[in-house]
Amino acid sequence: MAIELDYSPLLRPGIPGPAKRWGGLPPFNFVGGNNDAPSVPVEDMIVATAAVLRREGATLATYGMQSGPQGYMPLRQFVADKLGKRSGMRVSADDVLITSGSNHGLELVNSILCAPGDVVLVEQFSYGSALGRLRKFGATPVGIPLDDDGMRMDLLAARLAEFKAEGVTPKYIYIIPTIQNPGGSILPEDRRRELLRLSEEYGVPILEDECYADLLWDGKRPPAIAAMDGGGNRVIHVGSFSKTIAPALRVGYIAADWSVLSRMVAVKNDGGTGALEQMMLAEYCTAKFDGHIDALCGTLKGKLDVMIEALEENFGTAAEFVPTKGGIFQWITLPDHVDTMKLAQAAAAEGVAINPGPEWASDAEPARNKFRLCFGSPSLDEIREGVKLLADICHKEFGVPVRGANVERS
Amino acid sequence: MAIELDYSPLLRPGIPGPAKRWGGLPPFNFVGGNNDAPSVPVEDMIVATAAVLRREGATLATYGMQSGPQGYMPLRQFVADKLGKRSGMRVSADDVLITSGSNHGLELVNSILCAPGDVVLVEQFSYGSALGRLRKFGATPVGIPLDDDGMRMDLLAARLAEFKAEGVTPKYIYIIPTIQNPGGSILPEDRRRELLRLSEEYGVPILEDECYADLLWDGKRPPAIAAMDGGGNRVIHVGSFSKTIAPALRVGYIAADWSVLSRMVAVKNDGGTGALEQMMLAEYCTAKFDGHIDALCGTLKGKLDVMIEALEENFGTAAEFVPTKGGIFQWITLPDHVDTMKLAQAAAAEGVAINPGPEWASDAEPARNKFRLCFGSPSLDEIREGVKLLADICHKEFGVPVRGANVERS
Repeated sequence: MAIELDYSPLLRPGIPGPAKRWGGLPPFNFVGGNNDAPSVPVEDMIVATAAVLRREGATLATYGMQSGPQGYMPLRQFVADKLGKRSGMRVSADDVLITSGSNHGLELVNSILCAPGDVVLVEQFSYGSALGRLRKFGATPVGIPLDDDGMRMDLLAARLAEFKAEGVTPKYIYIIPTIQNPGGSILPEDRRRELLRLSEEYGVPILEDECYADLLWDGKRPPAIAAMDGGGNRVIHVGSFSKTIAPALRVGYIAADWSVLSRMVAVKNDGGTGALEQMMLAEYCTAKFDGHIDALCGTLKGKLDVMIEALEENFGTAAEFVPTKGGIFQWITLPDHVDTMKLAQAAAAEGVAINPGPEWASDAEPARNKFRLCFGSPSLDEIREGVKLLADICHKEFGVPVRGANVERS
Repeated sequence: MAIELDYSPLLRPGIPGPAKRWGGLPPFNFVGGNNDAPSVPVEDMIVATAAVLRREGATLATYGMQSGPQGYMPLRQFVADKLGKRSGMRVSADDVLITSGSNHGLELVNSILCAPGDVVLVEQFSYGSALGRLRKFGATPVGIPLDDDGMRMDLLAARLAEFKAEGVTPKYIYIIPTIQNPGGSILPEDRRRELLRLSEEYGVPILEDECYADLLWDGKRPPAIAAMDGGGNRVIHVGSFSKTIAPALRVGYIAADWSVLSRMVAVKNDGGTGALEQMMLAEYCTAKFDGHIDALCGTLKGKLDVMIEALEENFGTAAEFVPTKGGIFQWITLPDHVDTMKLAQAAAAEGVAINPGPEWASDAEPARNKFRLCFGSPSLDEIREGVKLLADICHKEFGVPVRGANVERS
């Protein structure tokens, strides 16, 4: 008979419960940073992979290839060039560390800065995984309110002053300034300048997450906060190829001054990020990134338009939102009495996956009636059908959107 | 002027010092799990990548592709089949979790089991990175002595009894039974059986690391310890494609019962392992793994033979060793007065990188005069030249190997 060891007395205290067996993707999948499948540049990837492997494939026999622990040199060079061209930054390949996705970048930042009891300032509504990671490190994310332009600098200043009075130095300010996640706003240049001033005044570094900044409908944006730092070291800049090329590849990057990057290189003990991905991306992106992004933005904007149409048609005035200026998600506010945690649960039971607001917020309460819909992955038909189904579920659960008797569906 | 923020008051306590800028690979590189560059199956990888991307490339748009959080299903299936065929294990794809290298597997095991103050039993001389990871988690690796057949079960039993008397339950027993790292031994079947019995008696699970087990000169080996567990859950089995295919790819795996695997899936928050690597490996290995391994083993055995010849020629009786039965490294003992930490430092200054024993040991002292030489990566000429140079350096520093006046080199 098989011997069953009881692992429960051996488990590290505080770990999450066991995972459930994976049940497949839901039919209407409006969560996660997934992207438009037909936009994956498959044939170009095949060509790029063949070229780079034929030239340098033998270097796979060595950890880090010929590039050392910061990642494949041609990819670091591409990232440095892209950050110069698109984000206004002046960085060299030596300032870039390749990571296994931007989440790995956030993990490295927490690894060198965060200990239990620490405070990190975040946007009131922010990336759920970033908030979860902070809590895992025992740090508390403290939210700064947002408006349609992003983080409120007057309220950030007030909070920093309060913490200073209490003798607390927050470990960093986490901000997604260009296509805020989930709000979709772009932080204006004057706020970026003010943020840098506050960073200097209070001695608190800035973690700038630019995962969506290459996916803008009109291409207009202020320089990255890191670009406005004038060669200083206040800003740790994080980005990714997940949203621009493909999330399953797991390649992101950090650009930062060596005074802080060297600390992250020292704690990074993963043997490097997958080499084939790095090599393919360097080869592909150097030749094709700009054209790919233009086409992808057109596709994503088309999906957003269909989602907005579907929201207006099915939710009417019950759904309030400012259409996002880029990226892959839309943030939506429902009437006050709607509890989106319950809505998400009811929707999941019918095959519709959404991000309820509290999972994307430093404090759950103000996000209670908000939710996030990702539009990158579902097809246009799935968007139309899924939003309609979601409105039906919401109506059934909460009586909104209100329907006349003649349009009530059974 | 650039504003320099002082990060030192913000750093998490206890992190390592800053990394130094990478200075390139040393000319004679006898460290690290690097492999034979000409053996990387570049053309077959190109064919495999093209085939799998053309068929399934669009799934890269989704985290986890169509396979969920445990990794690419065809790769998990290959791993399950391989473990059945080569290690005697009966596992399905559902029992396999793909990781970003086997180190990531060790990290996940520590993440669910180890807290500061814990004890983990290890082989007296063991994989340096595994020991370092345990210490990072605040756990203490406690070494069990080895002989030419691997871990001494009588001494393990004694240690377990001592800990029990003290009320301590070690979190797990870490063992590399098939090509022990660094000793190169293969644990006989009766010791494996005894290990399982002790695991049951004391309620301590076994972490079996089989990273080198596919690289055997004569192909003979006992079943994996996990294979002898009779459907139980005592053994967590870890492996890798780093040594069999290429280390820079960063793909490994864990096979374990769902009672413990589900805990690791729950804490794994990296968004998956690089998809392109997983897809290429599944496609390539399903068709070509066995033939590749046969050829690679021949190449590696040839390199070992040259290394042994060079050791005998240049070190004579000063170097004692049992030639490894497979893998990519040779463990060597020098006369008692040689301090290999100093030898490694002197050698590094002349472009020869070696692993000094204390870095591969739970207690430094018994490993003081031992060191590890990896032979997978250097060419035959580099092995000959590098070992000769190392003997010269050792003679200069420690007077051994002893040389007659007529063979003294200036």
